[in-house]
Amino acid sequence: MNELQKRILAEGRVLPGDIIKVDGFMNHLVDIGLMHAIARDIKNHFAGKTITKVMTVEASGIPVATITADELGVPMLFAKKAKSDNIEGGLIRSEIYSYTYRKKVSLIVSAEWLSPDDKVLIVDDFMANGEAMRGLVDIIDQVGAELVGIGVAIEKGFQGGGDRLRAHGIDVYSLAIIEKAMPGCIVFRSENRTPCT
Amino acid sequence: MNELQKRILAEGRVLPGDIIKVDGFMNHLVDIGLMHAIARDIKNHFAGKTITKVMTVEASGIPVATITADELGVPMLFAKKAKSDNIEGGLIRSEIYSYTYRKKVSLIVSAEWLSPDDKVLIVDDFMANGEAMRGLVDIIDQVGAELVGIGVAIEKGFQGGGDRLRAHGIDVYSLAIIEKAMPGCIVFRSENRTPCT
Repeated sequence: MNELQKRILAEGRVLPGDIIKVDGFMNHLVDIGLMHAIARDIKNHFAGKTITKVMTVEASGIPVATITADELGVPMLFAKKAKSDNIEGGLIRSEIYSYTYRKKVSLIVSAEWLSPDDKVLIVDDFMANGEAMRGLVDIIDQVGAELVGIGVAIEKGFQGGGDRLRAHGIDVYSLAIIEKAMPGCIVFRSENRTPCT
Repeated sequence: MNELQKRILAEGRVLPGDIIKVDGFMNHLVDIGLMHAIARDIKNHFAGKTITKVMTVEASGIPVATITADELGVPMLFAKKAKSDNIEGGLIRSEIYSYTYRKKVSLIVSAEWLSPDDKVLIVDDFMANGEAMRGLVDIIDQVGAELVGIGVAIEKGFQGGGDRLRAHGIDVYSLAIIEKAMPGCIVFRSENRTPCT
């Protein structure tokens, strides 16, 4: 069991609506040492692959993407969720459905900062339905850049997003794939632990 | 002239509406090495002070806050801009006016992750009118935590936010205070360079 999985079991809580609350170390208060452990694990998984950029979506994916880019020695590009005054010129967009906000959201990247020569590793804190990841993959495809793979800290395996991307041949690496989440009970994929009843 | 100031002069652009576009290294595509240089400079300024947490606001402040927390060896807490399903329980709020979105925005922090014992360094990528910083200071005050100071990468000195906070006795340290910004012309505070005409 890796460090992230241990922290999820020790400090994570399951709330109604399949929400896995890890905001004491992951997506509100952020344990930077844990981010380095996650980043090194992602780096090891993709060792030997050329990576020129780490890409994520604002906001909660940014800490782990920043530290992964730090470990890899490459820049980090974060997609924005709506048109901002601070982005001008050519924009690459992809429309996704946000289950958090229960509406369509545009992911936006400035065309200036992503080129067909880029080899991109997508990194995010969470994957559930995989909509945000699908949008980032679409943006990378539109540019003609190469998708190296996807590194995710926590995947809600029971929501199927990661497996849909894997079925498209994408290398999706998640440190903690949660197969079952009920109050007081979290079970990871490939665990031999007895599922909660 | 520090590394950030050099990058602003070399790559920054001034757009109508006093927008200083630095999205090739600061707030869209992020140069992690530059974030470390900024973080070390902030760390040096506040050397000798006890700091238990770095605090920022989502989204574009997160990379520099993450790396500053990394340099200091403390956790990073980012305030959210609207109520999210993923934060439960006691929330501390402060209402600010967002000039970017031209409306009032609530900054929100879970009471669970900020305590009266905390000694907080606020870090952000940009300060203009200082509204976001004022909101974070208000949240720290509500909790009864100690504000160590504010470290900012780029301050738009001509908008007065930083000086208003300094007038309240707050130690505001900015790496690049821009006093004048016109297309083709950026002048930093304390520079002896002839102002643009």
